[in-house]
Amino acid sequence: MLVILHADCTEAQSTAVEAAIRALGFTPLPVPGRSRTAICITGNRGPVDASTFATLPGVLECIPVTKPWKLVGREVAPESTVVRIGPVGHAVEIGGDRPAVLIAGPCSVETEARTLAIARAVQSAGARMFRAGAFKPRTSPYEFQGLGDEALRTLAQVRRETGLPVVSEIIDAAAIESMVECVDVLQVGARNMQNFVLLKALAQQPRPVLLKRGPAATLTEWLMAAEYLLAGGKRDVLLCERGIRSFSDHSRNTLDLNVVPLVKRLSHLPILVDPSHGVGVRDRVRPMSRAALASGAHGLLIEAHLDPRTSYTDAAQTIDIATLAGIARDAEVIAQLEATDLVEARQPSPAQGTRSLP
Amino acid sequence: MLVILHADCTEAQSTAVEAAIRALGFTPLPVPGRSRTAICITGNRGPVDASTFATLPGVLECIPVTKPWKLVGREVAPESTVVRIGPVGHAVEIGGDRPAVLIAGPCSVETEARTLAIARAVQSAGARMFRAGAFKPRTSPYEFQGLGDEALRTLAQVRRETGLPVVSEIIDAAAIESMVECVDVLQVGARNMQNFVLLKALAQQPRPVLLKRGPAATLTEWLMAAEYLLAGGKRDVLLCERGIRSFSDHSRNTLDLNVVPLVKRLSHLPILVDPSHGVGVRDRVRPMSRAALASGAHGLLIEAHLDPRTSYTDAAQTIDIATLAGIARDAEVIAQLEATDLVEARQPSPAQGTRSLP
Amino acid sequence: MLVILHADCTEAQSTAVEAAIRALGFTPLPVPGRSRTAICITGNRGPVDASTFATLPGVLECIPVTKPWKLVGREVAPESTVVRIGPVGHAVEIGGDRPAVLIAGPCSVETEARTLAIARAVQSAGARMFRAGAFKPRTSPYEFQGLGDEALRTLAQVRRETGLPVVSEIIDAAAIESMVECVDVLQVGARNMQNFVLLKALAQQPRPVLLKRGPAATLTEWLMAAEYLLAGGKRDVLLCERGIRSFSDHSRNTLDLNVVPLVKRLSHLPILVDPSHGVGVRDRVRPMSRAALASGAHGLLIEAHLDPRTSYTDAAQTIDIATLAGIARDAEVIAQLEATDLVEARQPSPAQGTRSLP
Amino acid sequence: MLVILHADCTEAQSTAVEAAIRALGFTPLPVPGRSRTAICITGNRGPVDASTFATLPGVLECIPVTKPWKLVGREVAPESTVVRIGPVGHAVEIGGDRPAVLIAGPCSVETEARTLAIARAVQSAGARMFRAGAFKPRTSPYEFQGLGDEALRTLAQVRRETGLPVVSEIIDAAAIESMVECVDVLQVGARNMQNFVLLKALAQQPRPVLLKRGPAATLTEWLMAAEYLLAGGKRDVLLCERGIRSFSDHSRNTLDLNVVPLVKRLSHLPILVDPSHGVGVRDRVRPMSRAALASGAHGLLIEAHLDPRTSYTDAAQTIDIATLAGIARDAEVIAQLEATDLVEARQPSPAQGTRSLP
Repeated sequence: MLVILHADCTEAQSTAVEAAIRALGFTPLPVPGRSRTAICITGNRGPVDASTFATLPGVLECIPVTKPWKLVGREVAPESTVVRIGPVGHAVEIGGDRPAVLIAGPCSVETEARTLAIARAVQSAGARMFRAGAFKPRTSPYEFQGLGDEALRTLAQVRRETGLPVVSEIIDAAAIESMVECVDVLQVGARNMQNFVLLKALAQQPRPVLLKRGPAATLTEWLMAAEYLLAGGKRDVLLCERGIRSFSDHSRNTLDLNVVPLVKRLSHLPILVDPSHGVGVRDRVRPMSRAALASGAHGLLIEAHLDPRTSYTDAAQTIDIATLAGIARDAEVIAQLEATDLVEARQPSPAQGTRSLP
Repeated sequence: MLVILHADCTEAQSTAVEAAIRALGFTPLPVPGRSRTAICITGNRGPVDASTFATLPGVLECIPVTKPWKLVGREVAPESTVVRIGPVGHAVEIGGDRPAVLIAGPCSVETEARTLAIARAVQSAGARMFRAGAFKPRTSPYEFQGLGDEALRTLAQVRRETGLPVVSEIIDAAAIESMVECVDVLQVGARNMQNFVLLKALAQQPRPVLLKRGPAATLTEWLMAAEYLLAGGKRDVLLCERGIRSFSDHSRNTLDLNVVPLVKRLSHLPILVDPSHGVGVRDRVRPMSRAALASGAHGLLIEAHLDPRTSYTDAAQTIDIATLAGIARDAEVIAQLEATDLVEARQPSPAQGTRSLP
Repeated sequence: MLVILHADCTEAQSTAVEAAIRALGFTPLPVPGRSRTAICITGNRGPVDASTFATLPGVLECIPVTKPWKLVGREVAPESTVVRIGPVGHAVEIGGDRPAVLIAGPCSVETEARTLAIARAVQSAGARMFRAGAFKPRTSPYEFQGLGDEALRTLAQVRRETGLPVVSEIIDAAAIESMVECVDVLQVGARNMQNFVLLKALAQQPRPVLLKRGPAATLTEWLMAAEYLLAGGKRDVLLCERGIRSFSDHSRNTLDLNVVPLVKRLSHLPILVDPSHGVGVRDRVRPMSRAALASGAHGLLIEAHLDPRTSYTDAAQTIDIATLAGIARDAEVIAQLEATDLVEARQPSPAQGTRSLP
Repeated sequence: MLVILHADCTEAQSTAVEAAIRALGFTPLPVPGRSRTAICITGNRGPVDASTFATLPGVLECIPVTKPWKLVGREVAPESTVVRIGPVGHAVEIGGDRPAVLIAGPCSVETEARTLAIARAVQSAGARMFRAGAFKPRTSPYEFQGLGDEALRTLAQVRRETGLPVVSEIIDAAAIESMVECVDVLQVGARNMQNFVLLKALAQQPRPVLLKRGPAATLTEWLMAAEYLLAGGKRDVLLCERGIRSFSDHSRNTLDLNVVPLVKRLSHLPILVDPSHGVGVRDRVRPMSRAALASGAHGLLIEAHLDPRTSYTDAAQTIDIATLAGIARDAEVIAQLEATDLVEARQPSPAQGTRSLP
């Protein structure tokens, strides 16, 4: 249930609505919006009776929410979220109708010199953000686990010297403080998508969070994982499709681009695609990058390197700088595709009150 | 093993090579080519000793074939196959570097009047071929199974009146004769991909064959099914990805676009994509059509209708004519993407003799 | 809708009910039963109004059918089907509460001498039916495709000399006549599960049909394929689970035993399990045979050979005779498990009229 | 590489071998064993030269390890691990040839009174350990997340009053200390199988760990997750299959029993099965429990309740006490199955030195 407040609702009225919600054993979650103020009722296990709230002072109307997710969905927050990353005034913007953003870099942070050189190269190739892992979740305990804190310092320097905002994976809530200091976006990897302890902790820190889809996650499970972040107070969340597990063994994963237009319709959050993990083979990263952009992705997360063969990790799927530059040119062509009203046409208009999305 | 013949190899020499192959219990399959003549050795269960053939008169060299498929692969036939459909001089060409072709029409053939009206509409929207089912393989025996022979006559009339070549599904070898008369391309549906009896029969008839990927077929199984057609003598075969089965339940199938660039590298056959069955929901057909084209597909097979809601079958995934026209405009934008040397760079050069494809 | 007739309903009344059904554009399908006579209404696309039929002379009651399948389900035919195979008086019985039946033999029919020797060996090891393929659907056109008609003659001789009923796969409706002559059960392989042309033809011949589940078939699709057989008039149909496609790559297929108890509840047809294809590795066939029997399967279809390593096909998953004898002993132990009322408790009692199965 | 030491190898010699391993940049991991002492070399990225170590004093022989896992596999530790849980003298033993152990209880810890009553009931029905969740990882942030520390106190009381050892899920390394105090086995849930931070922390605490297979985890990934535990020093690890994600939608998950016999051959660790999550529907838990036991599982983890319908969570898959008692009787029947030499026949004998497992 979403309680929409009058434009001129007073703070006292709003507080009274929240109190009424709590009085019934539910939890009120205020939903910020440009064009309206609303309070989402959570914690209920079945339908809530609208009449309880509809007549309270300051309440415009009550709208049932038909999806298991609340704050993540367009029912509750119809306006597309644009996540702003980096210094105010020079922020990179992702989401809504902004041009697709390329985020590129090596799989792992390497030596400072190599990492800086790669960062400068991906920047000149067209990347607007830098990616590299300091803490690597590896299938084997005997494999390289990342350079850790030393890598964080390198990332901070990349940011300082290039001005590129940096995204890096977090695998342990204990590292939040040091990561917040050194990187701009905290990434939750596919294996941790349902590490709810980590998600709850990340909701409390100041950086945007990039949430990868788990390899066996349904769309609902993925959006519900994002809901953990939003329910905890974090508003700037980026979703990222990176391939699912299927029987199909010709690629490392099965990049599920089918999810992109649907996420855009169901959720206001930006949706990125990681074609590197999605297909896992270098020479298919560019065609799948094109496909991802054409499907409507708000950006790409790509593993790129000056010398892919000597990449510390994931060498097989890491592309070179020339290929990255080609993808940047592809993005410009694909940006010419006419805007469709896919989202808008479906976007629930609160005034009309029709909520039944397929 | 592929035996490459000298450019000036005589017919007697060629016949002698084939006899030598047969003498060892194998089967020779001549491989036509613009730039070279070759004979593929099939029926062996392990490596063949090249020295047996390399010294025969007329033989240039012997190249091992490392894949389970032979005639379908670029190892044996490096040049891309362009399938020509319809009357000579006005044929629609699919494959190689030809522009992507839109094939559209209703799921099922409907009344003659409706079908003709739809055909004219998809033609003016940009479709260059017409699709519609006369024989429908349905999950339930109680559902509409297609109008059958009456539908074939309607298709023949569509072709006559619009000039559009027609593709339609065949589900029974007994229908080959009547279908050959009325349609231009015989489609093998996903459920019949490994109906080898049907494939063997289709290899013997004159029309090109469109072979859909089965919902649980690996890439190898799909290419091997195509190999049945080529081994039987059919050269003009079109592959079509239409979605696989995965746990992911947000779309009817999981359209596996990852396969498109790989098929283009491994095989010389054209690769189409069917976004209608691939996602199964009308309003995601256009974004996935864009993605399919951007991934490099040689064409699209789309269910379109003047009034999608009244479509006899598959109404939920059938788009209207305006959307189809939009996809035609999309195709023009995407055609501006620079050609990459993805295929060429990997294409095995017989002279170099390196065959190891990943 | 299922129209239940009075025990003393006359033939004229029954004919009148069928006529009334046809008059509304539907198709009546008589449902034989020990304890009641009924007519199933098919061809409807939505609910049928019960009042139309409930008041006709001879009609006891009308029961809505809530599943897409009709004749296959326990709603329409609550009593378990027992399929009788072979000569009257000495028939092997499969289904209901009969002891589980072992069906064993080589993947392919081999020479007459080898095949006979294997048949005698599996018989003395405890198999009550023989299995071997005459026509082999192979992934590659270059692989052994079975000995064909010669193999059928060998199977007829196995039956003559051992008395074992024989099951063998049919891949082409054109072979029905010769197969009916030589074998006792016609098997539809996983690849042909939705070859509806073949299913319709098989419904018209006199032998029982064993229908394997396709590797990507949902339970509903499988039962609907069986419905094609029953709707065409065939009553003695055996279902056989043989593994599905999943991401899990440690076995050839993922044997989905979870389906066994559910099939037993939803359908009256016997359910067999093929552990050989299900796991694809010889030394796991016995543990999975045990598991299949314990899950409640009515029988097993096993690839066994006197000398598995020299098996013409599927050598890796073919067990030896000693292992087969072990499985027969396992079956006796597992038969001691107490009967549970799983099916009975859920089995819809027509008199109670509650039809809602989960 | 596994360095096998002489039976009379001195501690000084052993220390020297470890030093030699470290000198080459690798990590030595001592492998305890009843019949031999060995040191496993980890940290290498390719084959290690055996000659370096084979001639050191005290070394019997060097054996290459062909699998990505080391300590988890039978190559390194051929003897089956038996995990002992609870007080010495009265410990429950799981693994090897011990009889299968039933572990049962409610999904979540409920009130103290209800939880105790359930514990007594499952005990009298035949369960030898108790299971119940204090911390529940839930798909939705708005769902019941478990009673937390209060639940731990209840579990401690269950243990005190019934003598049943207790297993409960841990989702946060921060809870290790309190959980170690109150429960006997710490469970890692499917969602956290690759939460390597948690695994590393669990390797350092004194309790046995039960590691569930992730829903998209290959067998290799699962064994590698267990390797994190063993590499960190934990020896008593229980594996638990609980169903994987597949397209098959008739059960909550697809219980992959095929993995049971293979795990028993590849690893010395005990393998349990959780049929409750595996199928997700109450009335199929008993048949799948039977199947799991017959496939060779060392035990079952079952959700059982005095009044399943009022279970706080997972009511649909929770069985009643009578059904649990039936499963205990089933286990006695299935225990009569003859022991097969499946494992032993394959078990690599270090003396023979053949290591090639399929």
